[in-house]
Amino acid sequence: MSERTRVCVVGLGPVGRRCAVMALERSELEIVAAADIDPAMQGRDLGDVLGTGKIGVEVSATLDEALKGSRKGVAVLCTTSSLERAADQIRACVQAGWHVVSTCEELAYPWNTAPQLSATIDAWASKASCSVLGTGVNPGFVMDALPAFLTGACQRVDTVLVERFQDASVRRLPFQQKIGAGLSLEVFEQQVIEGKIRHVGFQESIHMIAAALDVRIDKLQERVLPVIATRSLKSEFIEILPGMVAGVNQIAQGFSSGKAAVTLNLQAYFGHPQPQERVLIKGVPDVEMLIPGGLHGDVVTCAMTLNAVRKMGSARPGLRTMLDFGLPSGRFS
Amino acid sequence: MSERTRVCVVGLGPVGRRCAVMALERSELEIVAAADIDPAMQGRDLGDVLGTGKIGVEVSATLDEALKGSRKGVAVLCTTSSLERAADQIRACVQAGWHVVSTCEELAYPWNTAPQLSATIDAWASKASCSVLGTGVNPGFVMDALPAFLTGACQRVDTVLVERFQDASVRRLPFQQKIGAGLSLEVFEQQVIEGKIRHVGFQESIHMIAAALDVRIDKLQERVLPVIATRSLKSEFIEILPGMVAGVNQIAQGFSSGKAAVTLNLQAYFGHPQPQERVLIKGVPDVEMLIPGGLHGDVVTCAMTLNAVRKMGSARPGLRTMLDFGLPSGRFS
Repeated sequence: MSERTRVCVVGLGPVGRRCAVMALERSELEIVAAADIDPAMQGRDLGDVLGTGKIGVEVSATLDEALKGSRKGVAVLCTTSSLERAADQIRACVQAGWHVVSTCEELAYPWNTAPQLSATIDAWASKASCSVLGTGVNPGFVMDALPAFLTGACQRVDTVLVERFQDASVRRLPFQQKIGAGLSLEVFEQQVIEGKIRHVGFQESIHMIAAALDVRIDKLQERVLPVIATRSLKSEFIEILPGMVAGVNQIAQGFSSGKAAVTLNLQAYFGHPQPQERVLIKGVPDVEMLIPGGLHGDVVTCAMTLNAVRKMGSARPGLRTMLDFGLPSGRFS
Repeated sequence: MSERTRVCVVGLGPVGRRCAVMALERSELEIVAAADIDPAMQGRDLGDVLGTGKIGVEVSATLDEALKGSRKGVAVLCTTSSLERAADQIRACVQAGWHVVSTCEELAYPWNTAPQLSATIDAWASKASCSVLGTGVNPGFVMDALPAFLTGACQRVDTVLVERFQDASVRRLPFQQKIGAGLSLEVFEQQVIEGKIRHVGFQESIHMIAAALDVRIDKLQERVLPVIATRSLKSEFIEILPGMVAGVNQIAQGFSSGKAAVTLNLQAYFGHPQPQERVLIKGVPDVEMLIPGGLHGDVVTCAMTLNAVRKMGSARPGLRTMLDFGLPSGRFS
């Protein structure tokens, strides 16, 4: 058996914790360090924080403390959706000699949305001979890398439509809150304005698909619309009366020379009648792909992340994306 | 606009001719040479052979003649399913400084089925700083690279099932003959024994998926079964009476430690009620993917090939496969 890949989990919110639990299940990975800013976690055994039983790894208060002293490996960064906030953490990791795989949505394809910061991160990583990758289910897979991959079957691509339909009633509470479930229309619209209700990553996904197709997006539109409940709906956590918000419909379109080249349509609300992933490529030939039932957000985000972790050692140094990282793949049990 | 990629089409059978026609439609590719062993084609303008009108490229009698004198580019090799027969042609191409993309089925993932020859081809190509890739719809995409890619969503993979169901009545005559349509059961079984009725590439596909999943296949079983017509069926070319062979059902399984890790099921017969591509990954989570209607074999094989051609310049030298070539993708119109 080849040596296990050493992992440092940075950020122990819901996604970081799930990544940690799933990493513990994998024989090819070894968690050697962890960090979180929450004082209540610091100094505790990571296994106690996770509820899995002690594993002999203490949660550090700072990234520097977590990374120093250990032999190098891969930092799994689950701290923020914001590239700007993640940047300093990424720098700390690569300058300490650690690769970075992150669920930071804006890192999934930052070359167009943040070209200068992307070049800076690329330079930091290249200089340290480390690789940095943003991934997850969305962005990172189902609404960008997967449709891009499917276009490989086409002689010519005219338009790409990606639909993600989710029944939000079976998800965790923070997710239900993030889509505005149970709010009045007024509060929903206020929260949209405040940026509280918004899937982060559509711009990155559109630019990733466009880059794969050698096309330049010259206009990008994004709308966040409420889905109003027409009947009573409820989950373990929230009850929604008719007329209240059942969830969100977010649509983004990337235009090239006036044509809507890429359209992303995310519907996440209580009681969605047809949860699924769907890709429709119009071109030669047309290609339609379905994943009935859809992919579970958190589980697949963590699986994608850990599947990338084990391949970081053979990735090219610098800022990578799912387009140039190599074919993702899982691991046989 | 960046420089067009120079293409030499080698082998002008149905697939080579279709690749050539589709390459002529693409602004980023430029056919500069062609070769075929058929004396009736030699010296003629390729456009006349294709029926597209003259393009100023003469069909050469030999590969050496086609490759010499031209500036280097990518050879599109559509001559044979057999790696052994393709090997000399691959050597000639890379030693002349040309990359190779080939529809040779046994080249799609030859590392397990022909390890020595794979190492030899890898060495030829590496020495010449050229890249060699086998691709196509199947093997190369829908029954191997695509399911491997989808396992990236899984924390754990237990088994992979890939189904490809095709209505053969709408395909070209050579395809209908290759699946035994219209034969008696006796003749069908004789042709199976003679190796005339068999999709080539299942072993390669299974090993490709297994390699992606870090699992070693220790036993591989393959069966070629007839599908008997229960009613009269016909195509443009063939009429099938009840009791005759309507087509083929080919099943291959790769076992690891006694467990059927990968199962490939290809059904191609007249009147298939549900043409589609399907992937079912059992694991955590289960992932089911459908492509209703399925992918057209010839069109997608040529599209995959040409999409790879335009990326050969940035591929690593040596023998590549769809697992380490980079994410396939098409091109915006």
